Amino acid sequence: MLVIHGPNLNLLGQREPGIYGDVRLEAIDTGLASIAASLGGLVECRQGNSEGQIIDWIHEAMHDFDGILINPAAYSHTSIAIRDAIAAVALPAVEVHLSNIFAREEFRHRSLVSAVCMGTISGFGPTSYALGLRALIEYLKSPEHETTRSS
Amino acid sequence: MLVIHGPNLNLLGQREPGIYGDVRLEAIDTGLASIAASLGGLVECRQGNSEGQIIDWIHEAMHDFDGILINPAAYSHTSIAIRDAIAAVALPAVEVHLSNIFAREEFRHRSLVSAVCMGTISGFGPTSYALGLRALIEYLKSPEHETTRSS
Amino acid sequence: MLVIHGPNLNLLGQREPGIYGDVRLEAIDTGLASIAASLGGLVECRQGNSEGQIIDWIHEAMHDFDGILINPAAYSHTSIAIRDAIAAVALPAVEVHLSNIFAREEFRHRSLVSAVCMGTISGFGPTSYALGLRALIEYLKSPEHETTRSS
Amino acid sequence: MLVIHGPNLNLLGQREPGIYGDVRLEAIDTGLASIAASLGGLVECRQGNSEGQIIDWIHEAMHDFDGILINPAAYSHTSIAIRDAIAAVALPAVEVHLSNIFAREEFRHRSLVSAVCMGTISGFGPTSYALGLRALIEYLKSPEHETTRSS
Amino acid sequence: MLVIHGPNLNLLGQREPGIYGDVRLEAIDTGLASIAASLGGLVECRQGNSEGQIIDWIHEAMHDFDGILINPAAYSHTSIAIRDAIAAVALPAVEVHLSNIFAREEFRHRSLVSAVCMGTISGFGPTSYALGLRALIEYLKSPEHETTRSS
Amino acid sequence: MLVIHGPNLNLLGQREPGIYGDVRLEAIDTGLASIAASLGGLVECRQGNSEGQIIDWIHEAMHDFDGILINPAAYSHTSIAIRDAIAAVALPAVEVHLSNIFAREEFRHRSLVSAVCMGTISGFGPTSYALGLRALIEYLKSPEHETTRSS
Amino acid sequence: MLVIHGPNLNLLGQREPGIYGDVRLEAIDTGLASIAASLGGLVECRQGNSEGQIIDWIHEAMHDFDGILINPAAYSHTSIAIRDAIAAVALPAVEVHLSNIFAREEFRHRSLVSAVCMGTISGFGPTSYALGLRALIEYLKSPEHETTRSS
Amino acid sequence: MLVIHGPNLNLLGQREPGIYGDVRLEAIDTGLASIAASLGGLVECRQGNSEGQIIDWIHEAMHDFDGILINPAAYSHTSIAIRDAIAAVALPAVEVHLSNIFAREEFRHRSLVSAVCMGTISGFGPTSYALGLRALIEYLKSPEHETTRSS
Amino acid sequence: MLVIHGPNLNLLGQREPGIYGDVRLEAIDTGLASIAASLGGLVECRQGNSEGQIIDWIHEAMHDFDGILINPAAYSHTSIAIRDAIAAVALPAVEVHLSNIFAREEFRHRSLVSAVCMGTISGFGPTSYALGLRALIEYLKSPEHETTRSS
Amino acid sequence: MLVIHGPNLNLLGQREPGIYGDVRLEAIDTGLASIAASLGGLVECRQGNSEGQIIDWIHEAMHDFDGILINPAAYSHTSIAIRDAIAAVALPAVEVHLSNIFAREEFRHRSLVSAVCMGTISGFGPTSYALGLRALIEYLKSPEHETTRSS
Amino acid sequence: MLVIHGPNLNLLGQREPGIYGDVRLEAIDTGLASIAASLGGLVECRQGNSEGQIIDWIHEAMHDFDGILINPAAYSHTSIAIRDAIAAVALPAVEVHLSNIFAREEFRHRSLVSAVCMGTISGFGPTSYALGLRALIEYLKSPEHETTRSS
Amino acid sequence: MLVIHGPNLNLLGQREPGIYGDVRLEAIDTGLASIAASLGGLVECRQGNSEGQIIDWIHEAMHDFDGILINPAAYSHTSIAIRDAIAAVALPAVEVHLSNIFAREEFRHRSLVSAVCMGTISGFGPTSYALGLRALIEYLKSPEHETTRSS
Repeated sequence: MLVIHGPNLNLLGQREPGIYGDVRLEAIDTGLASIAASLGGLVECRQGNSEGQIIDWIHEAMHDFDGILINPAAYSHTSIAIRDAIAAVALPAVEVHLSNIFAREEFRHRSLVSAVCMGTISGFGPTSYALGLRALIEYLKSPEHETTRSS
Repeated sequence: MLVIHGPNLNLLGQREPGIYGDVRLEAIDTGLASIAASLGGLVECRQGNSEGQIIDWIHEAMHDFDGILINPAAYSHTSIAIRDAIAAVALPAVEVHLSNIFAREEFRHRSLVSAVCMGTISGFGPTSYALGLRALIEYLKSPEHETTRSS
Repeated sequence: MLVIHGPNLNLLGQREPGIYGDVRLEAIDTGLASIAASLGGLVECRQGNSEGQIIDWIHEAMHDFDGILINPAAYSHTSIAIRDAIAAVALPAVEVHLSNIFAREEFRHRSLVSAVCMGTISGFGPTSYALGLRALIEYLKSPEHETTRSS
Repeated sequence: MLVIHGPNLNLLGQREPGIYGDVRLEAIDTGLASIAASLGGLVECRQGNSEGQIIDWIHEAMHDFDGILINPAAYSHTSIAIRDAIAAVALPAVEVHLSNIFAREEFRHRSLVSAVCMGTISGFGPTSYALGLRALIEYLKSPEHETTRSS
Repeated sequence: MLVIHGPNLNLLGQREPGIYGDVRLEAIDTGLASIAASLGGLVECRQGNSEGQIIDWIHEAMHDFDGILINPAAYSHTSIAIRDAIAAVALPAVEVHLSNIFAREEFRHRSLVSAVCMGTISGFGPTSYALGLRALIEYLKSPEHETTRSS
Repeated sequence: MLVIHGPNLNLLGQREPGIYGDVRLEAIDTGLASIAASLGGLVECRQGNSEGQIIDWIHEAMHDFDGILINPAAYSHTSIAIRDAIAAVALPAVEVHLSNIFAREEFRHRSLVSAVCMGTISGFGPTSYALGLRALIEYLKSPEHETTRSS
Repeated sequence: MLVIHGPNLNLLGQREPGIYGDVRLEAIDTGLASIAASLGGLVECRQGNSEGQIIDWIHEAMHDFDGILINPAAYSHTSIAIRDAIAAVALPAVEVHLSNIFAREEFRHRSLVSAVCMGTISGFGPTSYALGLRALIEYLKSPEHETTRSS
Repeated sequence: MLVIHGPNLNLLGQREPGIYGDVRLEAIDTGLASIAASLGGLVECRQGNSEGQIIDWIHEAMHDFDGILINPAAYSHTSIAIRDAIAAVALPAVEVHLSNIFAREEFRHRSLVSAVCMGTISGFGPTSYALGLRALIEYLKSPEHETTRSS
Repeated sequence: MLVIHGPNLNLLGQREPGIYGDVRLEAIDTGLASIAASLGGLVECRQGNSEGQIIDWIHEAMHDFDGILINPAAYSHTSIAIRDAIAAVALPAVEVHLSNIFAREEFRHRSLVSAVCMGTISGFGPTSYALGLRALIEYLKSPEHETTRSS
Repeated sequence: MLVIHGPNLNLLGQREPGIYGDVRLEAIDTGLASIAASLGGLVECRQGNSEGQIIDWIHEAMHDFDGILINPAAYSHTSIAIRDAIAAVALPAVEVHLSNIFAREEFRHRSLVSAVCMGTISGFGPTSYALGLRALIEYLKSPEHETTRSS
Repeated sequence: MLVIHGPNLNLLGQREPGIYGDVRLEAIDTGLASIAASLGGLVECRQGNSEGQIIDWIHEAMHDFDGILINPAAYSHTSIAIRDAIAAVALPAVEVHLSNIFAREEFRHRSLVSAVCMGTISGFGPTSYALGLRALIEYLKSPEHETTRSS
Repeated sequence: MLVIHGPNLNLLGQREPGIYGDVRLEAIDTGLASIAASLGGLVECRQGNSEGQIIDWIHEAMHDFDGILINPAAYSHTSIAIRDAIAAVALPAVEVHLSNIFAREEFRHRSLVSAVCMGTISGFGPTSYALGLRALIEYLKSPEHETTRSS
């Protein structure tokens, strides 16, 4: 599975701990790797600040990965292009957010990406990623693939 | 922990499987009980179609439970009173949705309840509940309670 | 068929005759019973002020009735939960209003319930009910059920 | 009574049966004539694609008819001029729609004409006309004219 | 006079004192009783979390009380049904709020209930109730009833 | 305490009694003086049609008065400058309205001034002033000043 | 000059005198003819209910008249096509309304036609026409044509 | 009759002739005086930049004049207080604008004052005043006062 | 193929060349005929200012033509009836505009007709028609009809 | 001429053929090259997923190309920066879309780029490009450059 | 140059230092005088709470000053009249704000005055004035006046 | 200090001098360097068309610079990611614009970036940068850092 961290997440744990916590991105990635391992999977984690680069990675995932775990961060609210990329590659994708985006500024309440993902998890800090990965793996192992996704 | 299922969820698995899947509510409750047990916790599950009853249950939780897992269903989008109840009892609460509410009608995109919950999980079918319970238990066990919640 | 009268309709004929007329609810119910009888059908009439109770009745109708005639009154404009209940039970439903809701306050112009009903009748006073019942019975007797409904 | 069919209804039964059913306009007109006859009334049916022509007909009705049954079709949503015409002639008017306009595109949810009609019936296919005619005749025969209309 | 406390007010003084103060609901009720007594009146106080129950109480007031003092709390902003109930019973009603609703979230700035009440008092904590009761009693004693109400 | 009457209130009792009642401004001022006296306080009443003059008076109050009772009338809905003045002098202020502004035109439903006042009273005619004065005096006498204000 | 009366104005003086007065259209036309004569001009008056016909008349005016006096009635608010026609023929045009459109329903507050006319006069009943004609003639006689128009 | 020129009109003819023409305010006042004289009336003209002063003048008009001709200029779009003043004095008032406000910026399209005036004239430069005065005098001389105003 | 020119296009080349160019409608029609001929097709060109007439022509096309090339001009933005007509006849239709409607007034940015056409071409002056015709002919000749249309 | 394909178009023909068809991007580029050749022109085709890269290419076009054919895809709806780039280089540009953007989600109905392009073509699949190229070449060959563009 | 301080700025440094800092207005005026002197200019500083007075001062500036430095404070967001005054006198004007208006309440985000000023500076506390004065003097000394202003 | 020029600014002075002036970016950079030098500071200037690259540079500034001067150009209005980056690095930042963004298209009136900057300067052409740099240096030298920023 490909894990994509959107813009500014490279600063995680170094700035604004009041909002984003004090865990660093590397720690999250290590945690995801170990969860994946325990469930018999593999993750590759990338962080990018450029919308175009994130789109490229989503395209690559089409051939190299069986699912996407993505925290689109600020691009959640402005990028139709990332939405289109996820829709185009047609891989199961899970959207996660560290903070509860519904309890922040008005312009963060709407995610353009949610509608093309299997599901969305927001507000649990690093645990959001762990839950999202678990949901993705569980889904990939399930026989029912298609029917569950739309429920 | 108290699990609250909002309006119409008593019909789960009997109607509209295309949207809500074919798992019945009892099966979900049984699943939650066993997850809770495995993690050393206890859940009590209730389903109600009345906004007032759900508010009463949230009030009771203040004394009898240490956390709330709630699927407010249709009331997510219309009930300020349920929002106020959750804010008032000040217990950690997790909001879950079976379907991806962001991929449905416009009027289901906004949840009035999200802003007063720790986090929100939507779109994974019955797995949404499982993930939400796990997040809640993990949170209740963590030493950091307050700081993680706002992240 | 189940006839459901929404909130405040128990006061019909006693208050605000300028808006709602001076016919009492019992008179309407009697009239509906006799229309139903003449067309070879049966109606049961209930009035409730609670959103949750109305949802319960709609659920019961799934097993006990073959159609619903509903005047959701004020809940027409605010209840997604009643909308979901009607959609869930998948019985033919007809929405009626005594007054012309389009000639009243702005916030009464939109009914959340209309889109999941077969059709809507508003503005004819007690006659709205009579017409709605007739439409429902006619529909239930017709061979074409499904195709006509969407037309 | 004058029956007015708005724009594109001349194609009824020939195109888009999925939305409008497969009954032709002539069949509807014949049905209305026989209902009218059975209730001791007379109908004249006209179909027009021009807003101006429909306004002219409404004006004529002032002298030649005692009520109007109108399906303004697409003009429901855009014509203030037809609204003004109905208000000006001050005849009892009933608005009907074949399809459930509230379950279609957003821009069809509002009818400019509804507020100046006695009542509105939508969603029952050709039955909408039959119910509307019945409501109109019943009203014209009733002693109470004015009081019922506003209820 | 009937005093109605809306949803969540049973928790008053126990939770969120920063917003709602630390006075308990019983203290408010006692205070209102003594003000009423000193002015030669009687109050009965009820608290309810269910919209339907509040509507039932308003209906009962029609026969048993000569005025209503209501804090609709969260239902102020969402309940057309409570608005309709107050309009229907046509008793003088006064709306009160503990907090200054205009200094809180956007969705609390509009009260659907205000327009059918004699007047509104918000922001003075428990004093809001005291002022409201005084206004109601003064009004009931005044010879001018109708003329003052609309001023 | 300084009582400020906003624009057009000098005409009170002389024009539009249907909306504003037939009591003259002098009568209101006399009434307020006697209430204040009975409660051991003093009021000075001023009426002004100019926004700038009202702002000047609010500034003067900073040194000469311990509270403000203000009916900003039409300026309630358009003056950010009066709002800023009240916020700047940081005196307890109470906003009153003779008529129920929520039952009038849409553009009178929002008061820019409310959010910086302790509380708002509207709809009781001259009694609004009396209630407001009482609330203000009670507040000034209370030991708790700050905590009550935000409740 | 060409005088164009829009939809429903043929009923003037016969219906809804409360809104439109009791003067008939012929009386207005006669009045305009005599004003024009007294100022050395000629008017031709036409009334039409069809948007297309009004557009045709505006086109004809390009060759046959030196100015247009138009009461677009309901089409003021919905017809971009009439706006385009007036802009295209580039004749001085004056828009008039019998009633004060700004004191009526919200949807009558905006005229799509105003921006391409020299000026607009509304609210004076038949006098609106007389004033408009006077303005048009005065303008046509003035040496300054272009500069004054935009002022 | 009292003629009121709103803010910035004292600069007329000296600045921005492209928008407002090159006629000075004194010339307009002289013209109005001579029209009034020719029709047997008297005008007094005042110009003010202060909202409060304009309100004072409107109040004075109640006793000293029988009608008001007002160009509220920029205050047209922002002053509810001037609107209330005109409504309060209940004198016939005519609103005029030099420029075509509907062909300018969006925020100039709506006049808060129009709804309480007899009628509005905009776009004819100084001629707007002349037409407005004529309309006002004609109205004051007419026997029908009240009925015509609302038409 | 039927070519329909909407309202005011008969004035093309005679008025407002700055916006619409100086080519006359006949020249465009001649050009389309010769393009059609070169590609083995036939066109018939009609211009109408009446919405109703344009609807009639679209209906006729159902039997007499295999495709429609339409410039709905001002009706693009206001006519749901033309939209419905095109949807009803279910012929391939191409929408063209001479000017770039997206660079003009806000109210011209939305075309109600676009969604029921195969495609839209705007901004190339008379070339818009030529391109549209070419697209239509190419489509009619293609084997794939249905699949390409939705792409 | 420079042909720019926006984000996700590299996947063309490989994914979502229901929306975008099954032609690959290379096939489109080859087709454009041969059209250009036949008309005596040259095209260079580039595809990019990054907004910044597309802006760079537009800048380069200023020196190296005489026109731009661009399918901004998802960036059409969100990029003011691409709009500014096209406006800045002041080359003739044509916007094309494969699908009919007006028949898709609401947020795709507005293109920020359209207003600075010569024209827009949408809905004809790969033919959109062919038509756009033809329009661009025709324009570059025409003597009239500037005047036609604004028509 | 004329420096105008808008409403409530006379309280600067005395109230709400958290928002506006603790520097008094006199200190700002002294600072501006010394900057002006050092650059060979002269400033006159005035503070006013009345919109009308500020308009008068702007008019006077037309003859007595060569530029305006204005902090319209609360009137920035509500005064079209001040905007019109600045536009009318056609002097170079610079708008300044002490606080960052974009980081405050929604209703402070839009300034009606900005569009008619040369430029706007906000958020630097008293330094905003110093920067604004410098910009104004630099501009008045520059040879290029007109061209730079619109850039 | 780091100076960041947003998208399209590399074309400055070469295109659209009517809007952006004819000064080239290098000239601005040279000017800033000399101002910085005179005030004892250093600037490094970068220009980028890619949102991702600008975010990277802001991150780098965290370690290498003590303040940011940024002209986000078109990204001002669309980039939440740049806003988040500035908020995250928590360096003092100043936003500048060459043109007066409030006098341009509606969609340029709102900057998402302003709220996280110390202050904003717009409309003075290259002088905007000079003023911004001066403000930034002055701030960095001041003892009061934090308190002044929020004023």
